[in-house]
Amino acid sequence: MAAPRFDILGIGNAIVDVLAPVPDNFLATHAMQKGAMALIDDATAEKLYAAMPPAQEVSGGSAGNTCAVAAALGARVAYFGKVAADQLGGVFRHDITAAGVHFPTAPLSGGAPTARCLILVTPDGQRTMNTYLGACVTFAEADIDASVVQDSAVTYMEGYLFDPPAAQAAFYRAAAIAHAAGRQVALSLSDSFCVGRHRAAFRDLVAGHVDILFANEDEIIALYETADFATAAALASKDVALAALTRGEHGSVVIRGAEQHVIAIEPTTMVDSTGAGDAYAAGFLAAYTKGLGLAQCGTLASIAAAEVISHFGARPQRDLSEELAKLAAQG
Amino acid sequence: MAAPRFDILGIGNAIVDVLAPVPDNFLATHAMQKGAMALIDDATAEKLYAAMPPAQEVSGGSAGNTCAVAAALGARVAYFGKVAADQLGGVFRHDITAAGVHFPTAPLSGGAPTARCLILVTPDGQRTMNTYLGACVTFAEADIDASVVQDSAVTYMEGYLFDPPAAQAAFYRAAAIAHAAGRQVALSLSDSFCVGRHRAAFRDLVAGHVDILFANEDEIIALYETADFATAAALASKDVALAALTRGEHGSVVIRGAEQHVIAIEPTTMVDSTGAGDAYAAGFLAAYTKGLGLAQCGTLASIAAAEVISHFGARPQRDLSEELAKLAAQG
Repeated sequence: MAAPRFDILGIGNAIVDVLAPVPDNFLATHAMQKGAMALIDDATAEKLYAAMPPAQEVSGGSAGNTCAVAAALGARVAYFGKVAADQLGGVFRHDITAAGVHFPTAPLSGGAPTARCLILVTPDGQRTMNTYLGACVTFAEADIDASVVQDSAVTYMEGYLFDPPAAQAAFYRAAAIAHAAGRQVALSLSDSFCVGRHRAAFRDLVAGHVDILFANEDEIIALYETADFATAAALASKDVALAALTRGEHGSVVIRGAEQHVIAIEPTTMVDSTGAGDAYAAGFLAAYTKGLGLAQCGTLASIAAAEVISHFGARPQRDLSEELAKLAAQG
Repeated sequence: MAAPRFDILGIGNAIVDVLAPVPDNFLATHAMQKGAMALIDDATAEKLYAAMPPAQEVSGGSAGNTCAVAAALGARVAYFGKVAADQLGGVFRHDITAAGVHFPTAPLSGGAPTARCLILVTPDGQRTMNTYLGACVTFAEADIDASVVQDSAVTYMEGYLFDPPAAQAAFYRAAAIAHAAGRQVALSLSDSFCVGRHRAAFRDLVAGHVDILFANEDEIIALYETADFATAAALASKDVALAALTRGEHGSVVIRGAEQHVIAIEPTTMVDSTGAGDAYAAGFLAAYTKGLGLAQCGTLASIAAAEVISHFGARPQRDLSEELAKLAAQG
């Protein structure tokens, strides 16, 4: 098997984030559940945007964020996702390309606009998300470029990709191509409500097609419908070769068979939690594909997550290129 | 004379800022003068954007920023400026409207896109700007809604408005309408290079049509072609009833005839100087139109400037609504 051209191939919904700080009562007024991601249609997106305070636009999308952070850490990264041929699509393409990520997916012309996620950030740093999927709903099997999948050590997919209807087939196709080429498949569960919407499909996918699973405590409990984290973690470790489970301020647990590592968080001041899990996966996979041990993978994951929660937006604002090299030098 | 509906009417180039942090050598590589604003064409904008790191988009434009800050301080504000009927135009309209600013100018359809300013922020917090004027070049006399000008205590115009060719006539028309209605006209010189491009027109305007002048040290020296600040300030005080002249970390000087106030800066950590002068004018005019004394106008100006330079982007991220009320209560 030839050495792959890419360490990580991310596949996800290509989204531009529209971020604004709001007081807590804004969530109540608009009947939102704090910390969750809700899918909204075009009309609702227009209405909510009109009610939002002045905002800033930054490229987002869960797997897109992971790719940008992984590239900033020095990994070789590719990304598949569907933007429209419009100004926000141009913003998304610029940002991920400028981050050093190979982005071959053709934009959608003459259909829905580029997806937007209206993100309300409350004073406690929590983000509440409202996604209009736009052009993402046309992402399908035909968008899976087999040669790139074959040439990537890990194909990483976000669970949110199960929301647009045609993407599930794309997901299975990418996993099949990756495994046929002797590569690995990683999945992030993304959101406990997303798990609830697609539980049966996720259970099938995790048990039969995923090598590396990322989830937070709520998500892994939602997946296995258990009462507590320990039981869910034990079930996950039977389904997948490697699980990295995050627990907010309590850090994370990395499990490979009988091997288990408890990883502390990297202390920081949380300004905006948007992208914390995405950055965690980026740090983990950047170290993992470099051949580092699981404890070091978890440490780099925590460092990357701390960077993105310390400012507004989910993409890195600080040069992270030395973090991976430092860990690798420690051996 | 009836009490005006608006305290401040801002007129300027309606621009979306594209902000990215860059190392110092990025400016040298692209032959840019640190701290200046250069006008660029569409092709150059595309090329420079492609070379820029991942960025964030926020509404900008000098007078637009002033209006947003003034509204955040509690002033009643209107704005004229030309965006296109495109996604970035929608972003600009949302942000200034959500800030509480009345924005009646119709968007341009079927012409150039909404203007963008590619802003490179170096590690010292200085911003270097490259503006593609896009739809702004069609802003003209017809865009001056006389009833809004008549109903605004101060009509405030940015010097940058002299760059698009048709706007100069709009400028004079707005000034004439304001004065005929017994209102005041304010001008910001914007940039010493902009002064250099339009010196004769600015000299005529300042001497004959402006009541309140905002400028920094470089700009006022460029306007009067003098060797030092004191000489330029003395000349300005003969041309206009009121001059507010900023001197970076040395604070500012406010001059009305024989009355002179030296105002200190508000201490903060500078992250990005974008919008410092715009916010200064906003604080000054918000206090001025509330009837506060000149020293208080300068103090609120310094507070507003400190807020916007403490973070990325030129629009306020903190609630400023109590700052004006606090000063007013001090009497």
